[in-house]
Amino acid sequence: VLIRLDTSRVLAELERRSLKTVLIVAPDGLLKKANELASTLEARNVEVVISGEACYGACDLKEDVAEAIKADMILHIGHGLRVSRAGKRTFFVVAEDDVEFNKVIEKAAQILRQFSRVGLYTITQHLHKLAEAKALFEKYGFKVKINDGGKLSHGQIIGCEFQPAYAAKDDVDAFVFLGQSRFHAVALALSTGKPTYMLDPYLEEVTDVATLAEDFWRRSLLAVYKARDAERFGIIIGLREGQMKLHHVERIREGLAKHGKSSTLIAMRDISAERLNTFSWFDAFIQTACPRISIDGTCFDKPVLSTPQAYALLNLLEGKDIGNFLRSPTWI
Amino acid sequence: VLIRLDTSRVLAELERRSLKTVLIVAPDGLLKKANELASTLEARNVEVVISGEACYGACDLKEDVAEAIKADMILHIGHGLRVSRAGKRTFFVVAEDDVEFNKVIEKAAQILRQFSRVGLYTITQHLHKLAEAKALFEKYGFKVKINDGGKLSHGQIIGCEFQPAYAAKDDVDAFVFLGQSRFHAVALALSTGKPTYMLDPYLEEVTDVATLAEDFWRRSLLAVYKARDAERFGIIIGLREGQMKLHHVERIREGLAKHGKSSTLIAMRDISAERLNTFSWFDAFIQTACPRISIDGTCFDKPVLSTPQAYALLNLLEGKDIGNFLRSPTWI
Repeated sequence: VLIRLDTSRVLAELERRSLKTVLIVAPDGLLKKANELASTLEARNVEVVISGEACYGACDLKEDVAEAIKADMILHIGHGLRVSRAGKRTFFVVAEDDVEFNKVIEKAAQILRQFSRVGLYTITQHLHKLAEAKALFEKYGFKVKINDGGKLSHGQIIGCEFQPAYAAKDDVDAFVFLGQSRFHAVALALSTGKPTYMLDPYLEEVTDVATLAEDFWRRSLLAVYKARDAERFGIIIGLREGQMKLHHVERIREGLAKHGKSSTLIAMRDISAERLNTFSWFDAFIQTACPRISIDGTCFDKPVLSTPQAYALLNLLEGKDIGNFLRSPTWI
Repeated sequence: VLIRLDTSRVLAELERRSLKTVLIVAPDGLLKKANELASTLEARNVEVVISGEACYGACDLKEDVAEAIKADMILHIGHGLRVSRAGKRTFFVVAEDDVEFNKVIEKAAQILRQFSRVGLYTITQHLHKLAEAKALFEKYGFKVKINDGGKLSHGQIIGCEFQPAYAAKDDVDAFVFLGQSRFHAVALALSTGKPTYMLDPYLEEVTDVATLAEDFWRRSLLAVYKARDAERFGIIIGLREGQMKLHHVERIREGLAKHGKSSTLIAMRDISAERLNTFSWFDAFIQTACPRISIDGTCFDKPVLSTPQAYALLNLLEGKDIGNFLRSPTWI
């Protein structure tokens, strides 16, 4: 599999503005690519610093790092939204995965025969294959629905926002997720409540994620019920800029106080089981930073609720029905 | 053992300025104390956020976190310098350990009989016991020398700076380190080149750290020699505000380039073996953030040189004698 960085636009921009220092931000899997890009840029007399910290999404721009090291521009590789720029200095650089979906779509066409209308969604690195995938599904006789929505592109979902799919849910019989991310496929299913199939182009496998989605849902629900009996809560404020949701923090804290629960605010960048164990005196945690941390099966010793789970807990404490709290266009 | 926070001064300051939001920063071992302090402050209607990130020293003020969450004041627990304030908003809150040194000093008086003049040094939590310790040593017939120096208090050393002890080295026959930190005692020995004894007040043990110091020194030296053959270097810029030493980064990078070594700049907050393994294509790393990370026996798969080791490497590449490169009042 080849990953191609679409750098023509940013290189032109770099030249035009004769910038001195560039910060490159990338998820771990693309750091080697980042290093190659650094060499290309340094050959053009640009000073380059690579961010060595983990980066999980477009919520993590690291504009503060650019500020600290006085970089004029951030090239953010591998994540992207509908817009191509963000923050003060960030330019998204799409990393296109050249893997083909033809074979797995051929398989899926058989398996999905019971459905006539499908919604087609994927993550950034496969967005350039979407038109081709749509044409193929249509060739096999399906009606294909692809929306945009919120800050996301046509056919795009990310780990915490699903507006384009959510907006299409009443117009389709099933969703197809193109890619190899179990979490994104399950999130698509939980957000929309529709039958969802993951089409893995590397293994050429079609997976109905219903069972997995049910499992994720039960765990999320269980954590909420466990947290009901907790007395002392640590409420975590995410320090990654796009993860700082102070309005949720305030509302959740007030809600807990109303039911006699004590809470302490903790500001944190990386939320891991190991790190939370340092705070042994809390009975449960609420983290408003990133829903995936709570929902994607990480083993924590105590309940660690994401924002939608925290609001479900408040409803539970109020004696209200908590309903299907992940059935939502966004989890943040 | 009881730890007492000296908060009277900061509470008065807080009252006087009627501040709204306070960030508390503390090393892991004092986070429980931080939580108690948070409760005290919230009872006075101050909003408190605890920093949940690791904090290893006064180099890690987290003024950027205070900025992000709009805190008016930072209470930094457990570290301290000669001054009681730092940055824009930081007030140091000393955490005094009430453990007694009488018994271990009584033992040391026997063991150190061969020396007539001793230098007495310690870390922040025991500084309030220094006068008493000095009087005891004098009672046992020793001449005691205690200096201040640089940004450090009378009798203080930290993990990377030893000016007060270094300034006294020619006036003493041996150094005494009061406390249980193997690393600080060894650093005192390596920095000054003098016989050094660690007086552990908890175990009531007196340890000559010569063998340990020799071991740390050999490992530091070996890493420099291993790095000599490396071709591709990752040079790490520390993102903790007091750890960002861009002047060293530039000088070291130029020095390496002169000898045909390629290098890439990486900005990073937490430097761990696991994190560095992500950057598998480098042969060696130089980190200008914190010398302890390289010298305190962490097992890295590849050489990870601190600043003094990096300059030693440059001397080695120049064909110069690298000498005793840790024999220095500061390692940063």
